[in-house]
Amino acid sequence: MLFHVRMDVNIPHDLAPDTRSEIVAREKAYSQELQRAGKWPHIWRIVGEYSNFSIFDVADNDELHTVLSGLPLFPYMDIRVTALAKHPSDISSG
Amino acid sequence: MLFHVRMDVNIPHDLAPDTRSEIVAREKAYSQELQRAGKWPHIWRIVGEYSNFSIFDVADNDELHTVLSGLPLFPYMDIRVTALAKHPSDISSG
Amino acid sequence: MLFHVRMDVNIPHDLAPDTRSEIVAREKAYSQELQRAGKWPHIWRIVGEYSNFSIFDVADNDELHTVLSGLPLFPYMDIRVTALAKHPSDISSG
Amino acid sequence: MLFHVRMDVNIPHDLAPDTRSEIVAREKAYSQELQRAGKWPHIWRIVGEYSNFSIFDVADNDELHTVLSGLPLFPYMDIRVTALAKHPSDISSG
Amino acid sequence: MLFHVRMDVNIPHDLAPDTRSEIVAREKAYSQELQRAGKWPHIWRIVGEYSNFSIFDVADNDELHTVLSGLPLFPYMDIRVTALAKHPSDISSG
Amino acid sequence: MLFHVRMDVNIPHDLAPDTRSEIVAREKAYSQELQRAGKWPHIWRIVGEYSNFSIFDVADNDELHTVLSGLPLFPYMDIRVTALAKHPSDISSG
Amino acid sequence: MLFHVRMDVNIPHDLAPDTRSEIVAREKAYSQELQRAGKWPHIWRIVGEYSNFSIFDVADNDELHTVLSGLPLFPYMDIRVTALAKHPSDISSG
Amino acid sequence: MLFHVRMDVNIPHDLAPDTRSEIVAREKAYSQELQRAGKWPHIWRIVGEYSNFSIFDVADNDELHTVLSGLPLFPYMDIRVTALAKHPSDISSG
Amino acid sequence: MLFHVRMDVNIPHDLAPDTRSEIVAREKAYSQELQRAGKWPHIWRIVGEYSNFSIFDVADNDELHTVLSGLPLFPYMDIRVTALAKHPSDISSG
Amino acid sequence: MLFHVRMDVNIPHDLAPDTRSEIVAREKAYSQELQRAGKWPHIWRIVGEYSNFSIFDVADNDELHTVLSGLPLFPYMDIRVTALAKHPSDISSG
Repeated sequence: MLFHVRMDVNIPHDLAPDTRSEIVAREKAYSQELQRAGKWPHIWRIVGEYSNFSIFDVADNDELHTVLSGLPLFPYMDIRVTALAKHPSDISSG
Repeated sequence: MLFHVRMDVNIPHDLAPDTRSEIVAREKAYSQELQRAGKWPHIWRIVGEYSNFSIFDVADNDELHTVLSGLPLFPYMDIRVTALAKHPSDISSG
Repeated sequence: MLFHVRMDVNIPHDLAPDTRSEIVAREKAYSQELQRAGKWPHIWRIVGEYSNFSIFDVADNDELHTVLSGLPLFPYMDIRVTALAKHPSDISSG
Repeated sequence: MLFHVRMDVNIPHDLAPDTRSEIVAREKAYSQELQRAGKWPHIWRIVGEYSNFSIFDVADNDELHTVLSGLPLFPYMDIRVTALAKHPSDISSG
Repeated sequence: MLFHVRMDVNIPHDLAPDTRSEIVAREKAYSQELQRAGKWPHIWRIVGEYSNFSIFDVADNDELHTVLSGLPLFPYMDIRVTALAKHPSDISSG
Repeated sequence: MLFHVRMDVNIPHDLAPDTRSEIVAREKAYSQELQRAGKWPHIWRIVGEYSNFSIFDVADNDELHTVLSGLPLFPYMDIRVTALAKHPSDISSG
Repeated sequence: MLFHVRMDVNIPHDLAPDTRSEIVAREKAYSQELQRAGKWPHIWRIVGEYSNFSIFDVADNDELHTVLSGLPLFPYMDIRVTALAKHPSDISSG
Repeated sequence: MLFHVRMDVNIPHDLAPDTRSEIVAREKAYSQELQRAGKWPHIWRIVGEYSNFSIFDVADNDELHTVLSGLPLFPYMDIRVTALAKHPSDISSG
Repeated sequence: MLFHVRMDVNIPHDLAPDTRSEIVAREKAYSQELQRAGKWPHIWRIVGEYSNFSIFDVADNDELHTVLSGLPLFPYMDIRVTALAKHPSDISSG
Repeated sequence: MLFHVRMDVNIPHDLAPDTRSEIVAREKAYSQELQRAGKWPHIWRIVGEYSNFSIFDVADNDELHTVLSGLPLFPYMDIRVTALAKHPSDISSG
């Protein structure tokens, strides 16, 4: 089941640089693990912003919340989720 | 080059049903032709709305405007375009 | 799987009264059939507005869009969908 | 009498972890006590956000404000209350 | 139980003048009957707008919705309801 | 002359508890003195928020600003003022 | 007593040109009469918009509403009123 | 003197096609005459919208309003003007 | 050339009281010097807010930015500028 | 390929003055280098604000994000990017 997610990152300016680097590194590893598992099939940077548009492919709403609230950057992000359905013009599925 | 596009459709209630059906049919054909050409790789319905999120893959800004302003439903849509860049965590390209 | 839905109804003032009554009657029947089927467990009127908050219980996003876009009043409503997950403080399930 | 409530939690990043844990624990106990008393019949997590939609069933406006302003997280939340009435299509009450 | 209500009136410009006058006259009679019954203790014009702030004193949410949806101008108004509680600094009741 | 005022209080979390208590106590005394003088005839708590709707009855705009900017909580509040006029449906004055 | 007023004019496109011209002419005469009476000391066009910022000098809120609701263009305008007080840095009065 | 202008065009769907074409043609001629005169040095299409960002170079505010309100599409556009000053990092003028 | 300016002041609560007083005193002197020079012909307090509406009369956009960015409170203010033109109904200039 | 960019700068008040000066100086050098390279053909100050409107001319979306995220002030700015296309009325290119 697909969901569209927008994430806007706002890390406080007074966070210690080491802590910041460590969180950002964990975020990257966490994201790539989910990408490899097929649960996070797309992630795009929004040009000019510390933000992304992503597509998630999960079993249900609860799994999506578990995945998102487990993001190392979750405490520093605004996240907006939009449920997606198949579009009648979409040729991708037969 | 990738762009994120949100389209919200607002067809006037007093449009003649035949005209409406004809435009919607042309829209579908137009969209599918662009999908087959690889220029409109993703289109998703936003659940509960007469709206979609789409990803376009075009040569440049001018081509994107030509494609979007040629949509049969263009006069009846609100469209918002967001330029996308590769995300540093994206594993898809290499 | 649960979703929170807000519906705001805006029927054009120039719609023929008979047409209006007929659509509203079909809307009510459609809603009650879904309530009886367990797919629309809650519907509340927002005081002072021609609007409701509803909870839907469906198999997935596609079913929800099918249900919502089939509403007889769909062409006259603004609908906003929010995906819901189990709350960690919720005592209702266990 | 039913009310729809949205709560968005914003705990300051510099709150001491122990204080934070203690407040969150008290919030959970407070919520569950009200759920068991029948005053807070529904609470759902909004997917991807540190937020919930809740339904309260209280005697009147004053009781609702007493309940909400007594939440341990009240100083850290944005709360929006919407008064609910019975919907004419609702089959739940005979 | 008290509620704060804002009403913004938007009568379509093409409504027949006689119909308009008749509705406005019925609205005034309806309002004054509720004022005399003690259910609509305050109504103020917002300077420069075809709008009012009102205070309603009703038994519960359902009564308030019945009263508001019965307004002759209801189809032409945007209405926003806010539940009120006693303020701890208020000297008026004791 | 009547004015509608909305006040939203945002006291910084790091204000010393004693300072906070002292300001809140002065605010209450200040408000009640104005209520007794007839200049602040109504104050209602907005349910679920640290906010109020108030009605002020003052000689002119300058007096209202003097009164509001003298509130002990003024540095911590967002205040919005709306000028009120007599409503043509109001039965209260003759 | 001074008030700041913003007026945005939205005349429907299908209003008969003669009716439109007649209303606009009456609006101008009405405005100039109030300017000569000292009640409308300033009116400025907002560059690029069919809008103005104005300053009114009236006895009280009721007079302002009478003046504004008497504008020939009142049914076609959005009006926002802001109460003004003397600024402590203002050198103009003494 | 430079100004930044955003124009959003909303031509009513029921405008006669001939009238529409004639206005759009006059708009183009009017714009190009101003471009040749050096008063409208830049105009860009916003991708996906019937809108433009423009830069105007005029003697003063009054000239800008005369130019903008003379646009054949003026009755069908939302226009927002922003005054521009030289930027301290700008290398273009010496 | 006239401009309408709205200024909203937000001085951080943790600014040292002496620093604050000194900046506010300099702001007043700066404002009054510009008033005496005829460049700041009007300043009004917005009732209930730490804000003002002002009218500036300057040679051009660059002078206005120089004046505004030189305000001692500039780092603590949100400023919105609107270019003004002569209104066709204005009787003040002949 | 052209893009319209709005940048709003918000440097925290508690940043050390030396650090601030050093970042602002680096920002200026960075901007001027890109201007000389033809990648940042226009930059204008928005009157009254610590903001600019800019036009960028880059090869593609990825280059634009690289340029913008490399701005020394990037951590302290809100940036909004709009893709631009050639306008059909533009006389500048043949």
